[in-house]
Amino acid sequence: MPKEMFFEDFYVGQKMNSVGSAKVTAEEIKEFGQKYDPQPFHLDEAAGEGSFFKGLAASGWLTAAIVMRLRVQSVPVFGGMIGAGVEEMRWTQPVRPGDAIRTEIEVVGVRHSNSRPDYGVVRTRTLAYNQRNEVVLRSTVNFLAPLRHSVQK
Amino acid sequence: MPKEMFFEDFYVGQKMNSVGSAKVTAEEIKEFGQKYDPQPFHLDEAAGEGSFFKGLAASGWLTAAIVMRLRVQSVPVFGGMIGAGVEEMRWTQPVRPGDAIRTEIEVVGVRHSNSRPDYGVVRTRTLAYNQRNEVVLRSTVNFLAPLRHSVQK
Repeated sequence: MPKEMFFEDFYVGQKMNSVGSAKVTAEEIKEFGQKYDPQPFHLDEAAGEGSFFKGLAASGWLTAAIVMRLRVQSVPVFGGMIGAGVEEMRWTQPVRPGDAIRTEIEVVGVRHSNSRPDYGVVRTRTLAYNQRNEVVLRSTVNFLAPLRHSVQK
Repeated sequence: MPKEMFFEDFYVGQKMNSVGSAKVTAEEIKEFGQKYDPQPFHLDEAAGEGSFFKGLAASGWLTAAIVMRLRVQSVPVFGGMIGAGVEEMRWTQPVRPGDAIRTEIEVVGVRHSNSRPDYGVVRTRTLAYNQRNEVVLRSTVNFLAPLRHSVQK
């Protein structure tokens, strides 16, 4: 994998796995819940027990944020990965305290940008797994990567 | 609006606006960036200047998290709003330090859940605006709400 990737470095079928995994703690679940998703099952073990989730569970948006960090670590786009939209995202299993999340990314499309001639659009399918190899999140997300010749180095 | 909403309280065309708005600070942008999206334009003003965003900009996942908090505040589902997936999400303008974000949610679909007979699926279209009334994020997101008769009160 190049140290810094340009649009031309991506191809359909390319796979990029996260380096290691991200451990999720009860503290992080509650802190994120208090800030961004203050619902009982994201805030408190006892309240979680009586809920849909039957226990404390991470906000799906915390899971998505952790997946973003793993993506940033495993796909070093030159100048940074510019989000170009989510086509689909599903939360398929609750994320619990103690879970360790890893990601597998596959490039499923590459095309030049119509509106930004110096960039290409990379379409990616991401699967996030817990330590039992259960899929906890799947998504199809697009990002922009600069064309190599467009960048003055 | 009922204090706690069941599936039966939702109907296509229903609109729910956020109560007030959420102010975004440089500190929150950088803190979220460090934790979940450590790219130069989310971490540092100077690095942001030389980037695609021409300045410090919020991670799209921070914007999504703030939008979730506004959704939770404006849609009080009984027992909590259970995410049932994102059909689409686009970031249409950068979110900058000092921006104030508000949301407009419209119900665009209601149906009984096939897999969970005690729940219905509410499909919502969300537009998030900044203080200049520019759309910064738009999404189509589904959530579960319990059927009224399913709940022992």
